[in-house]
Amino acid sequence: MSQRTQVGIVGCGPAGLFLSHLLHRAGIESVILENRSREAVESTIRAGVLEHWVTDLMRGMGLGGRMDREAHIHSGITLQYGPNRFHLDVTELTGGKQVTVYAQHEVLRDLIAGRVADGGAIHFEVTDTAFHDVETEAPRIAFRDKDGTPDELLCDYVVAADGFHGPGRKAIPEGTRQEYNKTYPFGWLGILARAPISWHELIYARHEDGFALLSTRSPEIQRMYIQCDPADDIANWPDARIWAELHKRLEIAGNWHLSEGDIFQKGIIPLRSFVCETMRHGRLFLAGDAAHIVPPTGAKGLNLAVADVLVLSRALEDAIRHHRTERLDAYPATALRRIWKAERFSWMMTTMLHVDETESPFEHRIRMADLDFLSGSRNAQAAVAENYVGLPFDA
Amino acid sequence: MSQRTQVGIVGCGPAGLFLSHLLHRAGIESVILENRSREAVESTIRAGVLEHWVTDLMRGMGLGGRMDREAHIHSGITLQYGPNRFHLDVTELTGGKQVTVYAQHEVLRDLIAGRVADGGAIHFEVTDTAFHDVETEAPRIAFRDKDGTPDELLCDYVVAADGFHGPGRKAIPEGTRQEYNKTYPFGWLGILARAPISWHELIYARHEDGFALLSTRSPEIQRMYIQCDPADDIANWPDARIWAELHKRLEIAGNWHLSEGDIFQKGIIPLRSFVCETMRHGRLFLAGDAAHIVPPTGAKGLNLAVADVLVLSRALEDAIRHHRTERLDAYPATALRRIWKAERFSWMMTTMLHVDETESPFEHRIRMADLDFLSGSRNAQAAVAENYVGLPFDA
Repeated sequence: MSQRTQVGIVGCGPAGLFLSHLLHRAGIESVILENRSREAVESTIRAGVLEHWVTDLMRGMGLGGRMDREAHIHSGITLQYGPNRFHLDVTELTGGKQVTVYAQHEVLRDLIAGRVADGGAIHFEVTDTAFHDVETEAPRIAFRDKDGTPDELLCDYVVAADGFHGPGRKAIPEGTRQEYNKTYPFGWLGILARAPISWHELIYARHEDGFALLSTRSPEIQRMYIQCDPADDIANWPDARIWAELHKRLEIAGNWHLSEGDIFQKGIIPLRSFVCETMRHGRLFLAGDAAHIVPPTGAKGLNLAVADVLVLSRALEDAIRHHRTERLDAYPATALRRIWKAERFSWMMTTMLHVDETESPFEHRIRMADLDFLSGSRNAQAAVAENYVGLPFDA
Repeated sequence: MSQRTQVGIVGCGPAGLFLSHLLHRAGIESVILENRSREAVESTIRAGVLEHWVTDLMRGMGLGGRMDREAHIHSGITLQYGPNRFHLDVTELTGGKQVTVYAQHEVLRDLIAGRVADGGAIHFEVTDTAFHDVETEAPRIAFRDKDGTPDELLCDYVVAADGFHGPGRKAIPEGTRQEYNKTYPFGWLGILARAPISWHELIYARHEDGFALLSTRSPEIQRMYIQCDPADDIANWPDARIWAELHKRLEIAGNWHLSEGDIFQKGIIPLRSFVCETMRHGRLFLAGDAAHIVPPTGAKGLNLAVADVLVLSRALEDAIRHHRTERLDAYPATALRRIWKAERFSWMMTTMLHVDETESPFEHRIRMADLDFLSGSRNAQAAVAENYVGLPFDA
């Protein structure tokens, strides 16, 4: 038994879902295959900062209603280093742009509901997904459905939006792709806590004992992170120790205190930078985490995935509806130019804000000078702000 | 036999000479001791880019006449990477500021002539210079004059403007100073050539085979550099090989060609970043290269030395004429804040523009993304430009 569609998509994350919506708006059929359950997709906690054009895109697709009711608009960020705290007025520095704090799983819930309402096909809990014949004009995706029954999706084009660990990237032969990798010698210990909002915007802090980030999910739920050893065991971090570190690293202003609350989720993630070149092999295209990972500092991961498929959807529309493949041929180069700038920004924010014991004392002081220069230079602040709200697509 | 002065200065480079002029204008006596001959000081080829406020300072001291006749005013720089060339309109980006291309030894000639005309004391060709009793209120400098006769300078304060290899820094006990060091795995091969001007402003190029810099000394004399192995022997670089590398690394525009000429000086220098903290011990103060070295990319070395002594001269004036030592006590912290920003800028320009084979492929791509972002971001360009013309003193 087999099914047919124009674009077969593996992965029901931001890249896959935005792509299926954009293709639908262009009158192109697609099917999404996802190995997790819908419940798992809709509840996994990830990023939470949307660039201004991503929120515009959601509204344009008629999916911005809940976001506009529930999300927080942020017009600036606060940075700290040593005893210094300063404010980046992102909206003023970018001529009126802002970012929206709305958790990734909430975005996914809205996008899944939208696709289901449109009659779009999403197969959850599939297994053994494999790309075949991607070098031909009839690529296909083999899989087993949730009952274990073998099935096959016959496509004109296939898109691997299947994340860093998915099979998509490995379907590009090793000799034809180059992978760029950086693993940082530190990780993030993240918590979700039932606590009141402590500060009206995000605080990025470089403390001598390590980075800390204060952010919010809702008036009741707060998300905070502290730099830690990526190999550490979360069992070594009872709640009291986490709060003690958060107080120490975030409270420098003297007249401001972090509000505690009940920690109901905690975990440690490693930090990595990764880029795969190329992002195309025959009729297979990579999008999102399948092709690139950024460390979470700067909140670029989700936004970059959506940027990929915005470019890719237009290219697929040209190819499928107008039989012009110039944009499809240019997709890797077009996407990678923006990706490398986001990798640069994420790497820069990460190295500037974390304490890296593998760095020399000279390099350590250069990071402090970065922050010192940034605190006093409107130009440097504007260069950070334009990256934070999202670079233009022609840049 | 011994002499007496208020401020004893070791070193007749930019730091020592500007300091003696600034003190003279404040009615404070000083004596400069220098181990080289006047001819050697006035002919050694060094940097050549003056920040806008340095030229203002020279004019204010009545020493700007020859500079204003002979120097070149630069309002921008050109950067290249891969096949891309772009222009930084420094004057437009900084609201009207510019830099002046006027060789360091020409500055020194003007400053020495000015001190001699004022009756200022500069002892050339002294040897065995040594700082004594700097922890007391009667510091002194022992030396032998050009005839080998032992002599001694009794002072209220002593200033080591004696360069990276001078005895000044070592007079601060090891336990009370910390040194920050970075040695780059590449050097610069520099030439002076009798050739016409090839381009109206400086070109900084990152070529896949290494950095190159085109600059000018006069309509007839050009200064150019190429990245090389710092341990290489200049004998391995016949003129034809140097021109071949310069053509290859600089000529990307197709419609522009580098003019050749007779190479009359060439040599290889290593690149280093270095900062000594603190810059004071008792009544001994460090200024210029004695306390900090930057790689020449960005042309900050001379300017930073002058910045040090502008701060130090005011502090010494307060202490000697008004018996207030607050500024003198604050001198290391005040100077170091600006020094670290210049170290940051010089390090950033150096890493962005050189090919470093000790870097990972990921880091290499980050440097290219730096240049790609810089080429398209007015904010990033303005942040470079404000450093290039010289940061404000309150920053």
